[in-house]
Amino acid sequence: MSVVTIERKVLQKNDELAAANRELFARNGLLVLNIVSSPGAGKTTLLEATIEALRDKVRIAVVEGDVQTDIDAQRVAQYGVPVVQIVTNGGCHLEASLVADAVGSLDLDQVDLLLIENVGNLVCPANFDLGEALKVVVLSTTEGADKPLKYPAMFRKAGVLIVNKVDLLPYVNVDIAAIKRHAHQINPRLVIFETAATSRFGVAEWCDWLMAKLTAGHA
Amino acid sequence: MSVVTIERKVLQKNDELAAANRELFARNGLLVLNIVSSPGAGKTTLLEATIEALRDKVRIAVVEGDVQTDIDAQRVAQYGVPVVQIVTNGGCHLEASLVADAVGSLDLDQVDLLLIENVGNLVCPANFDLGEALKVVVLSTTEGADKPLKYPAMFRKAGVLIVNKVDLLPYVNVDIAAIKRHAHQINPRLVIFETAATSRFGVAEWCDWLMAKLTAGHA
Repeated sequence: MSVVTIERKVLQKNDELAAANRELFARNGLLVLNIVSSPGAGKTTLLEATIEALRDKVRIAVVEGDVQTDIDAQRVAQYGVPVVQIVTNGGCHLEASLVADAVGSLDLDQVDLLLIENVGNLVCPANFDLGEALKVVVLSTTEGADKPLKYPAMFRKAGVLIVNKVDLLPYVNVDIAAIKRHAHQINPRLVIFETAATSRFGVAEWCDWLMAKLTAGHA
Repeated sequence: MSVVTIERKVLQKNDELAAANRELFARNGLLVLNIVSSPGAGKTTLLEATIEALRDKVRIAVVEGDVQTDIDAQRVAQYGVPVVQIVTNGGCHLEASLVADAVGSLDLDQVDLLLIENVGNLVCPANFDLGEALKVVVLSTTEGADKPLKYPAMFRKAGVLIVNKVDLLPYVNVDIAAIKRHAHQINPRLVIFETAATSRFGVAEWCDWLMAKLTAGHA
């Protein structure tokens, strides 16, 4: 009983801090994405591809969330954008307070698009608002078509689904139409893109959509 | 501060219940595996392959853990073994109390090998002992070679690593030697198998090892 109460308090406190983050981001005219997925679905490669496609058009910064290591931050830093690494040290998700600390070391005046890569976990990050404008869930085709049904919270809270590794479809027994059907069954408003981030297939469509969102004014 | 205290109490309580489970399993001469992985790494297919290979030699029962749906339990039930589904309803891991409830509906006298499929999550289940003899972590080759370094707790606590979907190695930029090196760097005692569970490749080696463990008496 007391545990439930405490958990509610944690979520409530997080929601308050997320609202403060959201206000800070709006004040600075920032579009902020919270990118979530299972481990190994391709979040970091998608980040690299997105930065590559957009870095001459908009000013990008990245917050990397990981349980351990700064492997991802080092990968992204090679693309010449500011990166802040958050190591959760066993923690299964990012929280708004960690993101507030992380963006404190960025010059937000110099950023148009902030990409937050969450911990690889299709469950826990769904409950923790970071103050983002948009949750982007990345699903690898290799994970199977049943995942939106089995992990519905994440798909319900996301605005965009990126079905990644479509280049592997010929080699796995997975129906991409079923992935999309299940995703839309959980969340009919999901905007869906298909990518193979390693070869950059489909990345242009995703980035065009993102640019339109940036240009339209996302506030 | 109070949150940390509560969390410790939760873990302590879980450890006590896990110890009780372990005693129950030992009393019934059961070998119990706690099978963990990211979503979509292939736990259920590996279960199916393992049941197929061993069901004429040992009496198997399954506990399925899922955030939502009984898709996996229905898949496994087709193999003619007793299955109990635990739906965590958003919960990110199985706990010892849930497993105690689940095995309460099984006739443990009629079981030699109990396979518990945990929620697809490479982070949270690492902290929750279920009373198993052995944690088996399944990693899909498509997840990348850095995963043992990025999610070390799970690999540290596992006794066996099954590197699954090795049939996809020709199509992904992943070095299986690096997966194994990183896994052994985190946990030098890990016993590693390579499988492609859908085609049953490598399943015989894994099942031979498991049979030897069952025959030797695992207590």
